[in-house]
Amino acid sequence: MNAFEVRRNRLYDWMAMEGVALAMFEDCESRRDPSLRWLTGQPGDALLFLSLDRQSLLVPWDINMAVLYAQAEMVVPYAEFERRPINALRAAVEFLKTPFGSKVEIPAVTPYPVFLQYVEALSDFDILCRNSGIQEAAQQLRAIKDEEEIRIYRKAADITNNIITLLENNIRSGSLKTETDVALFIENEGRRQGCDGTGFETLAAGPARSFGIHAFPPYTGGPFAAPGMSILDFGLKYLGYTTDVTLTFVRGALSNQQEKMLTLTERAYKLAFSMIQDGVSARKVAVSVDALFEKSKKAMPHGLGHGIGLEAHEAPALQSRSDNTWQLKPGMIFTLEPGLYDPVMGGCRLENDILLSDTGVEALTKARIIRL
Amino acid sequence: MNAFEVRRNRLYDWMAMEGVALAMFEDCESRRDPSLRWLTGQPGDALLFLSLDRQSLLVPWDINMAVLYAQAEMVVPYAEFERRPINALRAAVEFLKTPFGSKVEIPAVTPYPVFLQYVEALSDFDILCRNSGIQEAAQQLRAIKDEEEIRIYRKAADITNNIITLLENNIRSGSLKTETDVALFIENEGRRQGCDGTGFETLAAGPARSFGIHAFPPYTGGPFAAPGMSILDFGLKYLGYTTDVTLTFVRGALSNQQEKMLTLTERAYKLAFSMIQDGVSARKVAVSVDALFEKSKKAMPHGLGHGIGLEAHEAPALQSRSDNTWQLKPGMIFTLEPGLYDPVMGGCRLENDILLSDTGVEALTKARIIRL
Repeated sequence: MNAFEVRRNRLYDWMAMEGVALAMFEDCESRRDPSLRWLTGQPGDALLFLSLDRQSLLVPWDINMAVLYAQAEMVVPYAEFERRPINALRAAVEFLKTPFGSKVEIPAVTPYPVFLQYVEALSDFDILCRNSGIQEAAQQLRAIKDEEEIRIYRKAADITNNIITLLENNIRSGSLKTETDVALFIENEGRRQGCDGTGFETLAAGPARSFGIHAFPPYTGGPFAAPGMSILDFGLKYLGYTTDVTLTFVRGALSNQQEKMLTLTERAYKLAFSMIQDGVSARKVAVSVDALFEKSKKAMPHGLGHGIGLEAHEAPALQSRSDNTWQLKPGMIFTLEPGLYDPVMGGCRLENDILLSDTGVEALTKARIIRL
Repeated sequence: MNAFEVRRNRLYDWMAMEGVALAMFEDCESRRDPSLRWLTGQPGDALLFLSLDRQSLLVPWDINMAVLYAQAEMVVPYAEFERRPINALRAAVEFLKTPFGSKVEIPAVTPYPVFLQYVEALSDFDILCRNSGIQEAAQQLRAIKDEEEIRIYRKAADITNNIITLLENNIRSGSLKTETDVALFIENEGRRQGCDGTGFETLAAGPARSFGIHAFPPYTGGPFAAPGMSILDFGLKYLGYTTDVTLTFVRGALSNQQEKMLTLTERAYKLAFSMIQDGVSARKVAVSVDALFEKSKKAMPHGLGHGIGLEAHEAPALQSRSDNTWQLKPGMIFTLEPGLYDPVMGGCRLENDILLSDTGVEALTKARIIRL
């Protein structure tokens, strides 16, 4: 049984438990759902129907791509259904002989007006659209990486670490000078070393722009690693899985206030890392970091970290929001990324990818604050 | 009055007509809505509340960024609301003194389960979530570009055309050899010429991969413009607005079948272009192109074109789907992009950005099928 079948089987079990006869996944431009790739190998732009009798029907936009990459019992091109998901669902209940009156689950992110259309078009079925449904079940399963995924991550992290070293050397030697130099070096070198590309748009912000949590535009022709604090946030995607790291480059003498920002950020990172263990509340870790900053009258304007995988941001959440109930578990891979930002002094952030396993806690990536 | 105020005023008028007391826009990672930028200048990651008494409240994730770019009567950092949209909406009805019982419109893309949460949390109000609501009103207004937007587009198209010429020269001279060479040349040169960056991930597919509508991965270290048909699909973003063009590079002798694909694609493009005029049904143009391909027993597996602007795909749709009711109107800027794909012979596509104005039809970009 291949990895996709193992994963689908876990969802078939879930469907049996929940009494769901047919479940639909949708990956489209406006609503990406990488669970579809995780379940079939199809890189994107498709519908997937899972039937309680353990049959899968893939409906890809690009049939040539599906033939090359995807794995499902049945494959029918989306064009057959005028590329309309409701048409495809109506055909799926026929193909898969879904019993009238049974539970048919559509994506939890289905907009309310579209939900009403499904209900009208499939009035013979009990349409479910809910949080804590099959999409969330898939996301929760995806939060714990399997052996194959951890193997992929070690390779992605190795390439990321190689590139961190090259970046440091090339910035020190002066061969990478601008934000664009740095960002395109990563694009080029990452592919040269076997990656699919970057996992999200690289954020390279020299001292004049590092105050932004997510610099806008992401990178420009302006100077990088000039005197002050520069932020470089990037990820490399390998077989679909992305790393996510942030380095801060520091050049020249800093003000006391800037030094304090750096010291606090490093201290926050170490505090968070020291708290990671099987069963710890992710919220508790985040709240501790918030408290550390607050003691120095600083505040971090974003969450402490997040799971990574086929998405740059996925489960678990490492945030101090009161509704965050995640516990960290072996197999999880997530970021820790404390940072501070000031419109005048600039910003700093330190972010690495952490694997919690049965044998301990490991920073897979080696991002750091680099003093030039 | 600046452009943002003019645009907000048009929506305030719409709200008065519809009796909506408060309307909410949301731009977040999982649900992007560039209307928020169009209305305020804020590049992203924010909520926007518009009140019937013509007050706007912006709630940005990154307050430093908002200070720099955004324009609204009131600005409150999202962190004040634990970064939870329902908390922010509850605060907004208080700040803006929205009368109990009045209509409060939330984004049409709000997932059904989240819609239920809004209804519960704001039981004193009449929560609207609908297609044909304020988001669609904004999208329809955005489909007609104003003078400032057309000025921006002319500049974006100029840079795109410069780069098309450079690409052709550098591919002919052999200095750009791989898919990555070509894609990163665009990233670099686009920024050098003043663009924010690319508007979407460049698709560069050599002959071995051009069968994919959207090549996966988007570009690799493999050869580009080798013998056969190579597809290059890219867009350059200038002040937020993206172009979207596709070139096909042809090298060496092709089979009769391949030549036929190219001829048909060019013929389809010319047919579509000749049909563009004020008031024409967008569906009719797309259906005519589908019919042209069908006569030769070919089928185009995607739509004929789409509006462009702050999004790479926006209104109007130029598709043959039966529910497409768009009419083309002066001020619209959209792509025409016929293409054919074959798993053995490869693919070809020709795509340009067309401006329909009071004085006629103009291809702003100069993409073409280039024989090397």
